[in-house]
Amino acid sequence: MSHTVDSAVSAVRTYIEQHRAAFLDDLAEWLRIPSVSAQPDHAPDVRRSADWLAAKLTETGFPTVEVWQTPGAPAVYAQWPSGDPQAPTVLVYGHHDVQPAAREDGWDTDPFEPAVLGNRLHARGAADDKGQVFFHTLGVRAHLAATGRSAPAVNLKLLIEGEEESGSPNFRALVEERAERLAADAVVVSDTGMWSEDTPTVCTGMRGIAECEIRLFGPDQDIHSGSFGGAVPNPATEVARLVAALHDEHARVAVPGFYDGVVELTDRECELFAELPFDEARWLRTARSHAAYGEAGHTTLERVWARPTAEVNGIGGGYQGAGSKTIIPSSAFVKLSFRLVAGQDPEHVQKAVRVWAAERLPAGIRHEITFSPATRPCLTPLDHPALRSVVRAMGRAFEGPVRFTREGGSGPAADLQEVLGAPVLFLGISVPSDGWHAPNEKVELDLLFKGVETSAHLWGDLADTWRRAP
Amino acid sequence: MSHTVDSAVSAVRTYIEQHRAAFLDDLAEWLRIPSVSAQPDHAPDVRRSADWLAAKLTETGFPTVEVWQTPGAPAVYAQWPSGDPQAPTVLVYGHHDVQPAAREDGWDTDPFEPAVLGNRLHARGAADDKGQVFFHTLGVRAHLAATGRSAPAVNLKLLIEGEEESGSPNFRALVEERAERLAADAVVVSDTGMWSEDTPTVCTGMRGIAECEIRLFGPDQDIHSGSFGGAVPNPATEVARLVAALHDEHARVAVPGFYDGVVELTDRECELFAELPFDEARWLRTARSHAAYGEAGHTTLERVWARPTAEVNGIGGGYQGAGSKTIIPSSAFVKLSFRLVAGQDPEHVQKAVRVWAAERLPAGIRHEITFSPATRPCLTPLDHPALRSVVRAMGRAFEGPVRFTREGGSGPAADLQEVLGAPVLFLGISVPSDGWHAPNEKVELDLLFKGVETSAHLWGDLADTWRRAP
Repeated sequence: MSHTVDSAVSAVRTYIEQHRAAFLDDLAEWLRIPSVSAQPDHAPDVRRSADWLAAKLTETGFPTVEVWQTPGAPAVYAQWPSGDPQAPTVLVYGHHDVQPAAREDGWDTDPFEPAVLGNRLHARGAADDKGQVFFHTLGVRAHLAATGRSAPAVNLKLLIEGEEESGSPNFRALVEERAERLAADAVVVSDTGMWSEDTPTVCTGMRGIAECEIRLFGPDQDIHSGSFGGAVPNPATEVARLVAALHDEHARVAVPGFYDGVVELTDRECELFAELPFDEARWLRTARSHAAYGEAGHTTLERVWARPTAEVNGIGGGYQGAGSKTIIPSSAFVKLSFRLVAGQDPEHVQKAVRVWAAERLPAGIRHEITFSPATRPCLTPLDHPALRSVVRAMGRAFEGPVRFTREGGSGPAADLQEVLGAPVLFLGISVPSDGWHAPNEKVELDLLFKGVETSAHLWGDLADTWRRAP
Repeated sequence: MSHTVDSAVSAVRTYIEQHRAAFLDDLAEWLRIPSVSAQPDHAPDVRRSADWLAAKLTETGFPTVEVWQTPGAPAVYAQWPSGDPQAPTVLVYGHHDVQPAAREDGWDTDPFEPAVLGNRLHARGAADDKGQVFFHTLGVRAHLAATGRSAPAVNLKLLIEGEEESGSPNFRALVEERAERLAADAVVVSDTGMWSEDTPTVCTGMRGIAECEIRLFGPDQDIHSGSFGGAVPNPATEVARLVAALHDEHARVAVPGFYDGVVELTDRECELFAELPFDEARWLRTARSHAAYGEAGHTTLERVWARPTAEVNGIGGGYQGAGSKTIIPSSAFVKLSFRLVAGQDPEHVQKAVRVWAAERLPAGIRHEITFSPATRPCLTPLDHPALRSVVRAMGRAFEGPVRFTREGGSGPAADLQEVLGAPVLFLGISVPSDGWHAPNEKVELDLLFKGVETSAHLWGDLADTWRRAP
């Protein structure tokens, strides 16, 4: 590493060291606010959390800070112009609401009374997502202190929503409505994780999702399986046949047209996945599962990160109680979710599923199919210059090689990518053991400050990247 | 018809005409007792019903009448020896309990206040099964009056159980325990129906049933379909694949060994079924279904009466609520019922299903399979001499040809056939419009008295049959 880099790293570290205690005190104050968006009686807390963050961002130095109301919980918006007319604009996304938590769920400490145990900060939201939002506040201050600037090297915008844990029901509309103010050259999403404490990684994509419920209707009421069994179509049997026809013998999705447009993994990406210290037995324990199973010709990591899927989330029909009841049920349903990867168009997939389902049902079975709003996949190309900035910033903080992962889940990042037309970069420092949505959620303090450092290094690097290739 | 037959028919009719009003008054009194075995608060009524019947059978002339207690509701047993040491013994089976009924279910009259509307007697139990049990009381008296006998031509036994509408949970044990007293050369079951008012028929068989629940277990808890989807086995998908594999492309049951031993329909039986005035559109309306569907190479009547089936009675797993939930469920289940026909052994079928299920599940999916107690199929061979007696007795009553049906459902008749080793004869005069288990249940008064007549003619004919071929 060059002398310049070294001095930048140490300047950032010095600043962080000086402000470490205050930063943790502030974060603890925020974590005490039980901003549980899914529980209506916590609505005032979610509003208080937004106001608290807005005040803190003003204190951080953002000249513009606003609380944006939605039909649900408020989001916080902040903006700090670079002053340089050539500087790119970067929008940071995170959320200030948290999952429900109660001591009796198995917490060793009060979930809303942050506790430092060893090198870990325990509290609901410590990792998901308040800790990861908050590291940017000290990050941008460290960036200014280390570079002697009075404003960030990029036009920095923050959008911290308040309903992510409730499915972001108003997020898309908010982004569409405020698209002009949110306009950015890149989006930085800090709501993901790394491979492990020892293996810093950058996530380069999330799968999208299309969900549907298919309801099949047979007899107008439940009928006697003795009197009529064997002679009329049974909607429970037919729904099972639909599900069985979802995959071929190679565990590939058998809906015609489903794979249209799929961006296949390159050999290089497969190699990069294979470089990760993946232990299948350990992964299975995390998955609480007893065998790996999936699309032929792909590894487990490829299957969960980079391959589209069709999964049954729920199936039902007929008698659900104890013992037996000799009926042919009147109706049956299946709830399916299709995870999508880059190149797949949710509308195209929805159409393909509709056609496929309709063609497979026999006479006498009527069906209805309902799709929930879909989420698009997002992918940061490995050679995207802005991704190299994230990797360099993270490399400085972690002082070592940075590898690549993806995320199998889906999130509102895709809405930002689509509505704003900007690439999404993932910057997260959480690790699988942090216990998102589980009791005893925590953040590793070392990693939290690596997040601060990465944030501090990122803005200058991104500005340089855009200067070289605007 | 010969002069002898004519005079027997008219003697029976004369006796019935004289006792018609009293018979209907008595039946109405019995129907007023709401002997609903499935509802615990009606347990005293079920006991009252047994006591009422016992008293009435004594009054009818049965020298031995007993109320048999069970761990559930009591049965009524009665016995009237012929006096002729060569006479065969015939056991009549029926039940004195009824389905639940309440005015607000859609009844036009009080279900437990019998009402004669036109030529129909409306009440819960009018057809199923009090009316059909009770016609034997006047039947045996008419038999005595018309023949001048002081005791029936056969040793007549009655077993009228009190739990048929609750699945006869104690019936098998009762029959096994009392097998010596119940010993008979033939069993007459009066708990079925005829094709229609215009087409008197004798049922010659009921299907058996083997029921099971198969539970599949995948992950130890519900897991996130984004994080893990596509890479572990999903028990809801697997349960659907099991169901889809139940049948082949000809809608035949694909469980190896399932058809072992099946007594195939003869050409003659198919012809007899085809002689019935079957109207598929009308049958579909009764089935509340919108298409016929089933095993290739068989008609609808063959499918429901004489072919074994596999039907899904219930299926479930994963999220059952509104909207979507992105999980891979921890478990899933299916409840299956297999209707069996003559020649199939329930234990053999159970074993075949166990092997079939176990072989089809992938690694990582554990399963449990539980069978309920099975019911065997029963079949009266068309050339059985006792069946000819029933046909002749019915022919005298209806003054016309008697055709043959079967019954797709299953019943405790098979237990009597198996434990007592006696052939089962079905003598029922109910018609499909009688509304078994439905509001406004009724019995056609004309048919009810044809039942009395048939009963009156049957005992002498059966005694003659045994005399010819003991």
